[in-house]
Amino acid sequence: MSSASFSAIVTQLTDGQTPPVWSLLVTVFGELAQEDGAQISGQMLRHISELIGIKPEAMRVALHRLRKDGWTQNQRTGRTSSYSLTDWGRAQSAAASPRIYAPCATAGSAWLVLCDPARPTQQDETAGVWLNANTQITSQLPQHPDRFATLLDAGTPLPDWMKAGVCSPQTREAAAAFHKTLTALQDRLSRHGTLAPLEQATLRILLVHTWRRIILKTPDLPDFVFPDNWRGPACRAQMVALLALFPKPDLAALAHSIDA
Amino acid sequence: MSSASFSAIVTQLTDGQTPPVWSLLVTVFGELAQEDGAQISGQMLRHISELIGIKPEAMRVALHRLRKDGWTQNQRTGRTSSYSLTDWGRAQSAAASPRIYAPCATAGSAWLVLCDPARPTQQDETAGVWLNANTQITSQLPQHPDRFATLLDAGTPLPDWMKAGVCSPQTREAAAAFHKTLTALQDRLSRHGTLAPLEQATLRILLVHTWRRIILKTPDLPDFVFPDNWRGPACRAQMVALLALFPKPDLAALAHSIDA
Repeated sequence: MSSASFSAIVTQLTDGQTPPVWSLLVTVFGELAQEDGAQISGQMLRHISELIGIKPEAMRVALHRLRKDGWTQNQRTGRTSSYSLTDWGRAQSAAASPRIYAPCATAGSAWLVLCDPARPTQQDETAGVWLNANTQITSQLPQHPDRFATLLDAGTPLPDWMKAGVCSPQTREAAAAFHKTLTALQDRLSRHGTLAPLEQATLRILLVHTWRRIILKTPDLPDFVFPDNWRGPACRAQMVALLALFPKPDLAALAHSIDA
Repeated sequence: MSSASFSAIVTQLTDGQTPPVWSLLVTVFGELAQEDGAQISGQMLRHISELIGIKPEAMRVALHRLRKDGWTQNQRTGRTSSYSLTDWGRAQSAAASPRIYAPCATAGSAWLVLCDPARPTQQDETAGVWLNANTQITSQLPQHPDRFATLLDAGTPLPDWMKAGVCSPQTREAAAAFHKTLTALQDRLSRHGTLAPLEQATLRILLVHTWRRIILKTPDLPDFVFPDNWRGPACRAQMVALLALFPKPDLAALAHSIDA
């Protein structure tokens, strides 16, 4: 693909703005180097940054912060540096991956849970979402006898206000915009030639990065509890199709393509 | 039965206090003269009042208020007065009767309903009980699409705080006390002789009156949503047994027994 064509794809996916580098690097490591022992060379990071339009200085600052925050560690061999996830960073990445890459919602069931209004609860003690101080929708049946729980299924009529409480208008807007972007992108990709390995890796990184920042802002619940205008399932289906169409390049082959 | 024996029964049932006469008269008409055209003579009311320990003046005041409130109407034949329910009074009485005389809970099902917390609701628009501003247990499935509803059944585990919201501690205490009274009364009635027709009518009136003031303070819901220490079902079973043991005297036969 021509440099201008790929640049247009990047502009489309980033909405013309450089994404926050620290957060983007978390995606890069999760996508390319989540396996134990996998390393990314400084050279590869520079190439990817360049394709996305990130300045070398911004990349260096973000890499330093990532290491300080315990996500990554550096290895130095002669004059070249390489980077890998720490065990902790790898665990964070692995925990998020199922939801990011899943072809369907990862939560199978949803429970509507009512807590005693007279007793404030630790709202973060379980997964799911709180509709108000004592009403929760969660994928896990609470064990506490103080909780009332009823199973919701795809046939349960849920009023709009209840679904609206499941994810914020901002996240819904982001999904709707991403849905449009993906539709336009599929069109553009079908009209242009094949991608070089590094372009393909970068395309995947940008796709996963945007999707990750949408899907991880929503509770892990079945699709049927989400608002009717939630485009998450549509985005997910398009992500699955695009990631299959542009599979993950092997890290060694990718390194080789840069050296060549 | 001796006058002293019956007086002891009255004391037991009224806890030694004269019940509010207006409210007691509502019970008297509901119990003895709910049929269209049924009349109670002033003479019969005086006899019943006397057995219960109500002063004639208190009875006259209450009768006057009942008529002013639209419950009853007076008929005068020569020197004797008789009283009957108005159509409106009869309708009120008939509406309450099923719950008062039912051998089991009149509501078959219970729905837990959640309303939009952002929209204040007309809390009195449907039957049932409100656990808080937006949570209701009701016997009728709400039709409004704004409501979430889930069916509760006897197997649904309900937390204590939820059951506690169904009826007040005061009503629970009243039911527990009435349960004790009924147990003692059954013992007393089995040890003493038979009742005269007017005594039997008065016994029923006092039983129905106390029970009415308990059961009508609770929402019309199945027993399984009530707190574990709710003695309503036990009272109801004892009421059914006692009312069967001491059936309702025919109004004409009762009038005849007074004249005799």
